[in-house]
Formats: sequence, C-alpha cells, structure tokens
Amino acid sequence: MSSKPARFTLSELSGRFALRAQGDGGRAVTGVGTLDGAGPDDLAFLANPAYRAQLQHSRAGIVVLRADDAAAFPGNCLLADDPYVAFARIASLFDRRPLPAPGIHERAVVHPGTVLGADVYIGPGAVVGADCTLGDRCSIGPNCVLGHGCSLGPDVRLVANVSLGDGVRLGARVLVHPGAVIGADGFGLVLAGDHWEKVPQLGSVVVGDDCEVGANSCIDRGAIGDTVLEEDVRIDNLCQVGHNCYIGAHTALAGMVGIAGSTRIGKYCMFAGRSGVHGHIEIADRVTVAAQSMVKKSITEPGTTWASGIPVRPLREWQRILGHLNQIESSVKRLRALERSNAETRDDD
Amino acid sequence: MSSKPARFTLSELSGRFALRAQGDGGRAVTGVGTLDGAGPDDLAFLANPAYRAQLQHSRAGIVVLRADDAAAFPGNCLLADDPYVAFARIASLFDRRPLPAPGIHERAVVHPGTVLGADVYIGPGAVVGADCTLGDRCSIGPNCVLGHGCSLGPDVRLVANVSLGDGVRLGARVLVHPGAVIGADGFGLVLAGDHWEKVPQLGSVVVGDDCEVGANSCIDRGAIGDTVLEEDVRIDNLCQVGHNCYIGAHTALAGMVGIAGSTRIGKYCMFAGRSGVHGHIEIADRVTVAAQSMVKKSITEPGTTWASGIPVRPLREWQRILGHLNQIESSVKRLRALERSNAETRDDD
Amino acid sequence: MSSKPARFTLSELSGRFALRAQGDGGRAVTGVGTLDGAGPDDLAFLANPAYRAQLQHSRAGIVVLRADDAAAFPGNCLLADDPYVAFARIASLFDRRPLPAPGIHERAVVHPGTVLGADVYIGPGAVVGADCTLGDRCSIGPNCVLGHGCSLGPDVRLVANVSLGDGVRLGARVLVHPGAVIGADGFGLVLAGDHWEKVPQLGSVVVGDDCEVGANSCIDRGAIGDTVLEEDVRIDNLCQVGHNCYIGAHTALAGMVGIAGSTRIGKYCMFAGRSGVHGHIEIADRVTVAAQSMVKKSITEPGTTWASGIPVRPLREWQRILGHLNQIESSVKRLRALERSNAETRDDD
Repeated sequence: MSSKPARFTLSELSGRFALRAQGDGGRAVTGVGTLDGAGPDDLAFLANPAYRAQLQHSRAGIVVLRADDAAAFPGNCLLADDPYVAFARIASLFDRRPLPAPGIHERAVVHPGTVLGADVYIGPGAVVGADCTLGDRCSIGPNCVLGHGCSLGPDVRLVANVSLGDGVRLGARVLVHPGAVIGADGFGLVLAGDHWEKVPQLGSVVVGDDCEVGANSCIDRGAIGDTVLEEDVRIDNLCQVGHNCYIGAHTALAGMVGIAGSTRIGKYCMFAGRSGVHGHIEIADRVTVAAQSMVKKSITEPGTTWASGIPVRPLREWQRILGHLNQIESSVKRLRALERSNAETRDDD
Repeated sequence: MSSKPARFTLSELSGRFALRAQGDGGRAVTGVGTLDGAGPDDLAFLANPAYRAQLQHSRAGIVVLRADDAAAFPGNCLLADDPYVAFARIASLFDRRPLPAPGIHERAVVHPGTVLGADVYIGPGAVVGADCTLGDRCSIGPNCVLGHGCSLGPDVRLVANVSLGDGVRLGARVLVHPGAVIGADGFGLVLAGDHWEKVPQLGSVVVGDDCEVGANSCIDRGAIGDTVLEEDVRIDNLCQVGHNCYIGAHTALAGMVGIAGSTRIGKYCMFAGRSGVHGHIEIADRVTVAAQSMVKKSITEPGTTWASGIPVRPLREWQRILGHLNQIESSVKRLRALERSNAETRDDD
Repeated sequence: MSSKPARFTLSELSGRFALRAQGDGGRAVTGVGTLDGAGPDDLAFLANPAYRAQLQHSRAGIVVLRADDAAAFPGNCLLADDPYVAFARIASLFDRRPLPAPGIHERAVVHPGTVLGADVYIGPGAVVGADCTLGDRCSIGPNCVLGHGCSLGPDVRLVANVSLGDGVRLGARVLVHPGAVIGADGFGLVLAGDHWEKVPQLGSVVVGDDCEVGANSCIDRGAIGDTVLEEDVRIDNLCQVGHNCYIGAHTALAGMVGIAGSTRIGKYCMFAGRSGVHGHIEIADRVTVAAQSMVKKSITEPGTTWASGIPVRPLREWQRILGHLNQIESSVKRLRALERSNAETRDDD
C-alpha cells in the first residue's frame, strides 16, 4: 500500500467519535486487531459477552467496550453503547486502500451522449455506453462495462470487471464488487411446441441508495417492469436475484442466496448463506431465514425466523437416517396398525 | 434508451402475427404490461386461468388471449392458441435496446489467423485469440475474451465480459450473458501421494445452435473429449456444468443449478433452481427435478418428476423435527419392540 | 489450435516417465482417450477396477495400468503403481494449448511502482495496479485487473477477466481461472439502529504455492488480518470463501462450495459439490464432506466423513415423506402413548 499509515490518540478518537475515554489520552494506535490478536499499537473492541474473558489478557493499546465492561478494566478504552458500530467507524480511519483519483483514463471508452458529474473516475478498459448519466464522484473501475442509458447517482463505485445492462439505475453511494452483473436478461422462456422461445426482458433494474452488491452476484432485469432494490439492501457474493423481484430496504442476503423471479421481500429481512426463495411469493418484513433453507411459500408474519437446513452427521449414521426416512411411510402405517390393535385389545378387555 | 419507441395497431399486429383480432383495429399500443398493471397504451396477455378475474378490470389497450376467454370480453384483443407464446413474439417488437452496429472497435484486439464473417461487431476491449472463426453477424461485446481457435456460428452474441477458453465451439444464435465462462479447465486432479497433480483438460466445449448461457455461469472444458450441449439448451445464471457433461437438446437449467462432471442428461429436461446432479450418471429425457433437490443416481424413466427439497418451518418447530429425525433410529427400534411385545401378548391370549 | 501435434513412442514414454514398458517399443501415440473411446493412436489408462472388462476390447495404442492388470494383457502398455497419476503426467505432453509468449501487450496498463520479473506476460486490456510485484514468468491474461500492492510469485497464471483486490499475495504457480475474484471486501456489516454500516475490511488474501482457483469463484479479503489458503489448496468453480477463513494445505473444494467467514479448515480435507460450512468453526484434517451437506458445528475428529444431503425421490413419494416428516412430532408422541399403554397393560396382567 502506498499511502501513509494512520495514527490516532485516545483523545483524538474520543473527540472525533464523541465517545467517553478512560485512561491515557496520549495513547496512540496505528491499526486495529481482535482482542486476542491486537498488539499495543492496535485498537480492539469487545461487543460479544462471550469474549469478555479475553479482555484481561488483551495487549490492545485501546479497547472499545460498553461502560459496564469498562468498570473493571484498567487499560485505555473508549465507552460506546454499541462497541461494534463504534469500532466499524473508527476502523475506517485505518483503511489505507487508496481510492482512484478523479479523471477519465485514456484507455477508457465513453460513448456519445453520456453526461458526467464532477470528479468522476473512469478506469482503463472501462466502457460506458451511450446516453448514460454518472453522478458526481462516481468511480467506474477498470474493465467495467455499462450498457446504454444507465443512470448512476453520486458516489457510486463499481470496483472492477462489473457489467451493467442497458438502462440500469443505481442510487447514491451504491457499491458493486468485481464481477457482479446487474441487468442481464431474466430467464424468460416459453415452450413453443417443440422448442424454447425467448420472452423479451423489457424492464431494467433499479437499485436504491446505499446498496451493496457482492462479487459475481447477479441481479436480472425485469421482463415487464423493473427489478427493484430499495435503499440499503446488502447482497453478498455469488447471489442471484431473479427478474421482477422487489427487495425491501435494509434487507441482507448472505453468500450464495438465490431469489427466484417476481418474489417480493420485505424490509429488514435476513437470508443466511445459500438459502433460497421460490418465485412469485411474498416475504413479510424482518423475516430471518437460516442457512441452506428453502422458502417455498409466502411468509406473512413479520419478524419470524425460519429454517429447513439439516446439519451433517457421520456418513454411516446419516445413511441409516436416510434409510429410515425412506421407510417413514411404512413406519407410520405400522404405528397406526399398533394403535388399532391396541384399541381392539382394550375393547376386548 | 436512444431509439424511437415502437407503436403498433391491433390490425397491424393481427396481420404480422397471423392472429385473429376482435375490437377496434385502429387501437394502437406502444409497450407491454401485465393485465393488472397495463395502461391503455399497453398490450397484455391472459394465459394462466388463475388471472382470468383480472381481465374485467384490466386497462390494457389490447389483450392477447384464448378464443374461449375472448367470448365474454368486450375489449380489443388478439386470439391465440398459446397466448404466452404470442405475447413473447409481439413483445419483442418493443425491445428498444439497440444492438451494436457492425464493425471492429479500434480498442478491440483481434489476433492473427482469425477469420471474420460479414457484419461482425467486436466491441472495445474485446480480445479475440488467434485462429478463431466468427460467423456472420456475430456480436462480441466489450471486454469479452476468446482463447485460441474458437469457432462461433452466425448471429452468436457474447454480451460483455464473457470468457471463452481455447477451442470452444458455439453454434448459430448462441447467446451468452455477462461474466459467463465457457471452456475453463475442468476440476481434474489426482492425489499423487502427498499432493495434488493436475490432470490436463484436453477437450473443449461444443455448444449447439440456439443455446443460451446465463450471467456468471460456467461450462468446463472436457478432460478427454468435449463437454457438449445439444441445441436449444437454456442455462440461467450462476450455473455450473462440469467437464465432459453431455446435455440434451431443449433442456433448461434454472439459476444456480450444478451438474457434476461426466453426467449425461436427456432432452427436454427441466432442473429447477439450485438443484444439483452428481457426476457420472445418466438422466432420461423429459425428466423434471424440483428446486434445491439432489440427484445422486441415474434416472432411467423418461418424463418423471423428482424432488428432495424441504420447505422451511418456523425455527423452533424445525429444531424439534431435526431432533426427532436424529432419534428416528431409536424410534424405529421402539416401534419394532412394541410390535414384538404386541405379537407376544396376542400369542399369550 | 495452432501448435504441432505431439507424437511419442512407447519407448520414449517409458524412458521419460521411468515406467516399465511391455510390448512394441516403437508404437507411437498422438493423443489420449478413455479405454472405451481411444483409437490406435491414443494412450489410455486403467486405474479403477470397475473398468477392467473394457481392457479386452480397447483399441488404445498404449494403456497405462498396474502390473497385475498387465499380466494378462497382450497389448502395448506402461506399468505404473498409480496409473491415473502416470496418465495425468503423460497427458500433459498432449496439451497443445499454446501459452502466451512473454511480453507486455501494448494494450495492457501497468501502473507506476510495479516490479516485473523475467519473462512476464501481460495481455491486452490487463490492468496492473501501482506497487505490485510480479514474479518471473507470471502470465496475466487479457482483461485481468490487479489492485494496488499485489504480490505474485513466479509462474502465477491468471487466465482472463480475473480480479484481484488491493494487497493480494499469491504464491508460486498459483493458477486462477476466468472470472475469479480474490480480495473483494468481506461481507462485514453492523446494524447501527435503523441502517447498515460497513465494517472496513482491512486485511487481504494470502494464497500459498500451487493453489488453483476455479472460474467465477470468490475469496474475500479479511476484516482484521488476512484470509489465508495454505499451499496446494484446490478450489473448483463458483465457490465462496468468506473473510478471515483459513484453509489448510491440500484441501479441495468442489463446485459451488461455500465457506462462511472466520472458519478454519484443516489439511487434506475434501468438500464435495455444493456443500456449505458455517462461519467461526473449525474442521480437523482429512475430513470429507459429502455433496450438498451443511456443516454447522466444528468437526474435531480427523479423517471422518460427514453428510446430510437427501437424494431425490419421485415427487409424489417425496411429498408423502415430507408430510410424515412434518408429523414426526405427533408420531413420536403416539409411539410414547402406545408404550405407556402397553406398560400399563402388562402391569395389569
């Protein structure tokens, strides 16, 4: 990394983030670490009570923690109601990865009709289609490809090798990681007798402010009307969002989650890794779905948690369970036969 | 979008698609919509009887429907045996996304020995390897990379950021969406004592006419011999097709489907989202596999439907089910014990 | 393919690979095939006893096999303790895909501060960030993008359209297939009241010697500290490795495997296709996980095999099994009631 490492004292951090400090105000840190792994020049945090025992042995120069955890702590610390939030904000001071300087690289290709805001960066090999609009401070990384008529709000960042289809609209501060594809054709086909015909995908994709799309994730364009993400939707890597889905604000999809077409998802939902949702259903607000689960029907009660994933067992044991599962029907019949015979026996008495 | 919006009257559509019209022949539409969402300038369709009730309240300017649904419909309509097929064809008139004009962009790189058909487009940043053959009207989008010796039939379209390995052969009209990778090395490894050695992947990939490959999907090259897709195979996003697979004509793979290596799949099969198929097996024609299912053994009966996915339950309920599933073996033993004791009791009588 | 086909005699192969030959030393082959499909100019192998019957009918010019299989074989053959390993090595002679010649293509962009070893290839459209170090004979394929401060050992090959984030370090001979993304931000978020805030991902990714990363796979950068792959880790296509994972040497991940963040995996583990591992757990050495399984808790016994995937059943049958599974709780209650009633009956006797 080329930029100069950051260095901040306890007092500086206390002032900048409005957090009460305890200990030596001149104590300085130059990076962050875990409670366990931090050295004297690192700032660490304690949020999860499970790690409280590590506090005594931590070599961290500064620890961010709750007031009640700080009471018995002799070291330098910052008191926060939510130490992980405070840590996240402080840690951003130490993100030394340089952002590209504004400017259109000579190896970028910008088609006619495109309107660029102030301080836009377009990297080498990036291709911006005709009639696009890029807001102030947009950053289009190397080898990204934008179709025709895309519209990007201010401070959008496409990191590298991102593809946007025609007419895709991204809100302010949207962050798209490498290899993501937004606005490819939805999977619209109709069997015309003996062969498939393509159903034209005439909509596009609208992504709200502050959304994040992970590496190699795909969000398809709508067939009729648009696929929509409201603001602050957070999508991890290798996720699939089908055509005409509508995802509510602040919903998060962990890695490899798939949402089939035309499904409507509420706000503040959380989908754990590799969970999948069928098409044409609705999920209420604040619904949580556990890892590797399959949602087949609408979920109408907000705030509920759902699961269907099965944790591994030793292979032999699992094979026996599978065998019994295959026989479950005959087991139920045998159970009923026993009940009947039992009832008869009783009647006989 | 830069191109002029399309506008078609009922009479024009009736003539162009050989569909019987009913109502005002001069009625014009400029786009498409759902029965529910269409306005007076939109064309909609009724194919699924479940939506029949929406017909009465639809504001659509023209509706495509079956003759029997049209009987009681006072509005403007087009009669079709398969309204969804008719709709798909009509809707393509309104796909205003401009296709790139023929020509080799000055920022494209075409290696020596490559033979280009008529009216080929090669976009900025695209790299075409040596000794490739591109058919008439091929469209190689921005930043696509073709290896050596690829052969593309007429009207092939690689949208953007697509990668083709050496020697990949694509039939006529193949459409490949952004980020797809066709012809990367298959996962061929052998454990040589204490470390892996690579098994060279000497085959390539052969894709038939009219196939479609979704965004960020991968089709690996064969180890010995080729990986083959017959014609009109349709693959959605983020799918994986392993080395030396053979997929029959008109088979469709929905999002995130994975087919392990050397598996042979019949014609007209359908794999729903996130289903997976083991390697070295065979699947008969017209087999359907439900979402999130795992096919471990060959399926020999054509036309059958298979499943193993489990829909979600509320978390607590699911945890109790899992607990019982883990105890299924002891439950079966207890059931048998009861049966034995019951038999003894009867014998005692 | 442009290069001249290879041709080797039995004697030449015997000498080059130190394998005992049997038959006509002058017999030559120009390619490889399966026992079943090989012709007289092809070399084939017999490793799996299941294919022993094919040996009699094989038309292969030379067969690689074990000494005991060779006893009754009248054809030309090479004797190997591990015929598949020997085959893999011999087959590499027939990999006629030309590697790019060293040189920096005029359409490549190399930022200042980057240090290049001897005989490096950087293809058209490739973008190498500032302050990178590329070892001797590195091959950076077309349209690959490297961030700032990446460090690549000798003989690294990025095939095409690969993205490396800032500060990624790859060991010697690492092979990365098209579309793979190494070093994108991990999925680090914290809910700050009513919205998500990003947790800066300050670590990077360190990949050991001889690792292979499949097409469109993603390995995220660490939040605090690095994501680490030891040497000879082999990752297939469309896999996801979360931030701060640590994967031991010689471990293999088949297609579509996902490992959530901060999980530590031992050496020589094997994860079959589409298996998934939760975050913050540990997996011992030489653990095998079957296809489509979910590992939720740490596995501490080395050398064990685990599974939880359910093979498909005909749809109707599966629906009935699901119905019984949903009723499993009431079935267990009925079983207990029967046991109790039975005990009472016995007491009554």
